[in-house]
Amino acid sequence: MNIPESNLPRVVIIGGGFAGISMAKQLANKKIQVVLLDKHNYHTFQPLLYQVSTAGLEPDSIAYPLRKIIKKHRHSFFRLADVTRVDTENNIVESNIGTLSYDYLVIATGTKTNYFGNKAIETHSMPMKKVPQALNIRSLILQNFERATIANSEAERKALLNFVIVGGGPTGVELAGAIAELKNHIVPRDYPDLDADAMQIHLIEGNARVLPPMSEHASKKAEQFLKKLGVHVHCNAIVKDYDGKTVITNSDLQLQSETFIWAAGVIGAPVNGLQANALMERSNRYKVNRFNQVEGYTNIFALGDIAAMATESYPFGHPQVAQPAIQQGYLLGKNLKNLINGKPLKPFTYRDKGSMATVGRNKAVVDLHRFKFAGFFAWFVWMFVHLMSLVGFRNRVIVFFNWSYNYINFDKAARLIIRPFKKEV
Amino acid sequence: MNIPESNLPRVVIIGGGFAGISMAKQLANKKIQVVLLDKHNYHTFQPLLYQVSTAGLEPDSIAYPLRKIIKKHRHSFFRLADVTRVDTENNIVESNIGTLSYDYLVIATGTKTNYFGNKAIETHSMPMKKVPQALNIRSLILQNFERATIANSEAERKALLNFVIVGGGPTGVELAGAIAELKNHIVPRDYPDLDADAMQIHLIEGNARVLPPMSEHASKKAEQFLKKLGVHVHCNAIVKDYDGKTVITNSDLQLQSETFIWAAGVIGAPVNGLQANALMERSNRYKVNRFNQVEGYTNIFALGDIAAMATESYPFGHPQVAQPAIQQGYLLGKNLKNLINGKPLKPFTYRDKGSMATVGRNKAVVDLHRFKFAGFFAWFVWMFVHLMSLVGFRNRVIVFFNWSYNYINFDKAARLIIRPFKKEV
Repeated sequence: MNIPESNLPRVVIIGGGFAGISMAKQLANKKIQVVLLDKHNYHTFQPLLYQVSTAGLEPDSIAYPLRKIIKKHRHSFFRLADVTRVDTENNIVESNIGTLSYDYLVIATGTKTNYFGNKAIETHSMPMKKVPQALNIRSLILQNFERATIANSEAERKALLNFVIVGGGPTGVELAGAIAELKNHIVPRDYPDLDADAMQIHLIEGNARVLPPMSEHASKKAEQFLKKLGVHVHCNAIVKDYDGKTVITNSDLQLQSETFIWAAGVIGAPVNGLQANALMERSNRYKVNRFNQVEGYTNIFALGDIAAMATESYPFGHPQVAQPAIQQGYLLGKNLKNLINGKPLKPFTYRDKGSMATVGRNKAVVDLHRFKFAGFFAWFVWMFVHLMSLVGFRNRVIVFFNWSYNYINFDKAARLIIRPFKKEV
Repeated sequence: MNIPESNLPRVVIIGGGFAGISMAKQLANKKIQVVLLDKHNYHTFQPLLYQVSTAGLEPDSIAYPLRKIIKKHRHSFFRLADVTRVDTENNIVESNIGTLSYDYLVIATGTKTNYFGNKAIETHSMPMKKVPQALNIRSLILQNFERATIANSEAERKALLNFVIVGGGPTGVELAGAIAELKNHIVPRDYPDLDADAMQIHLIEGNARVLPPMSEHASKKAEQFLKKLGVHVHCNAIVKDYDGKTVITNSDLQLQSETFIWAAGVIGAPVNGLQANALMERSNRYKVNRFNQVEGYTNIFALGDIAAMATESYPFGHPQVAQPAIQQGYLLGKNLKNLINGKPLKPFTYRDKGSMATVGRNKAVVDLHRFKFAGFFAWFVWMFVHLMSLVGFRNRVIVFFNWSYNYINFDKAARLIIRPFKKEV
């Protein structure tokens, strides 16, 4: 990989998500060589991917070049690499661009979409974990609007204007709300030859309520907001099959749809080569101790979504959201410096800052430690927190301008079908 | 195509470029049914494509949804369609989404890249006429930077850092200047493990000077600017071959390069079905009279780049740039209303507003009727004119902000390899 050899201990971080960059920043300009590896040359701000899918934001304004993050760090290197295996015996990472030895390895590979073994759904549904996937959804939505204008039958048009989202977590709720805004504001204005009323948005959730990890208050409010926007919310419904045309659930619900978005769950994306029992079953997360050390290893760590640290409050690991990843990355950065210098390590304790989700303009829900609130103020808080969490001043300004523009004009302007999406059949 | 039948005369416009949208705007809310067809759902502001290729701007900020342009026009329709043929006997347009009859047909299909029949160059070079092509170039440049950091041999690294642009017109000059800015400002900062000095940019032009359609003063200044930025300018050199590795010219010049961008010429992109002698040989442009009527037809018109209107000052047709297209579209809109109302038509006269090109920050050349100037003020004029010519308030603000940001920070931030480009071999 052409990384210079030095006397410094080498830390290899796999993955430039929230956890990986949080840790890389802690190790900046220390007497440690840091090598950050990622399959992409950019960090993705996943919480706003749904706005890329729904034409509200350009991908460039929610992603950030990884090289820009570490460019001022001495002894830090970035490589665009797909890690294929870790040789834990010899402390070597193997990848598509060659091998690299490490002194310490940090696995921050995050999660991938969980289809629960359903091959038909995996083939025909649209996932939304990455920028290209979000752009595929954007293209498909806009292509289906265009196709609906020239549909030959009512049934065909109906299927093209039926949008089905599976998974009532924050991603599904936010996506359903944003598609509803397309229906309410964009279609009537820009597609005068389409009947906006014929457009339907269905949100399907297996639990009894949407946003199951949040408070009952938040769930209730979010469902009210969704219904106000015209979204059909189906709780206690599990999707059994989708063949590219028909959505079949375990209840009476059956829907014809050309746009089927799968946001029903994630599963860890581990690397090959570690011993099998280091992984938790089902969730595919590495069992880590309070110092994020992977079970059975002393120099291999896992961070964020891919790590399951069992604590009293979180016996199955922390929630797979940005905050635990950022906090763990920060602490492991500090701990690693201590480890190298022979100082004691500090165990991790998660500081839950609360959770939030937005449904649409002036509509969000926020659960804080003591307060739970919903509506305009919650929406304002949501915007502020997300804006401040974006990486880079330029991205913040552009997102802020786009949001202001969208708010004033009821518009979503990034509506280009740049690379038409072709469905696999 | 599902366009409602009405008593109004129907004008079908093929192509949503400068000419097509200029005409569509003239026909807004008149007693004329307008159907705008395009292969893409957006208008592309081609003069700034090179900034998309070089990570300065996002594609969404130089393109604009065609539906948004005509959304307030009663009797206007947009269809995403690829026109395959025109049946001039029966006045019918045939496309991938069905057929449509017309009363008047306007061909505004523009040009495509001209490879002068060289298949090897067509296969291996990167054209830059469309947004996806510009994004391909952006990906390739960034991928080659990444590959150069891990190259195994000096020869391989050299080829990866050798950027060859063919064609010294405005596109080639602007692109070469922008890549030179990547070399001068981005590579040294964000690729500390690359030797920026090893990066070379070559601009190859067949004529004796760059910017051949502009004044000698402009050519001289542009060449000076390019050289100051470190671009190797090769005039009087014609590329004979490129096999994906080696650029061969008619002179001694031979270059190893992994990035070969073809901006050496365009050729008309006519539609099938019109009689062969309506087209000019070589340039593939429709011969039109002063009313933009295609030779041999009374109800078929051609506009902009695809039209060759022979006048005293322009015996082979007007320059293939935005202004003639915009002016012709504007006049034909007016003339068509007159034609339908039985009023006399006005012949077209081109009002040359001058021409300009930019090489980099503070470096541009402007040829006006009486004045020719270069440098900072020219660069300022260039920016102002391009900013004001963009479609849409949002795009103008975002481009303005990006330019200010890039200027202050010497940065180009849209550096995501979203869809890696795979070379055809």
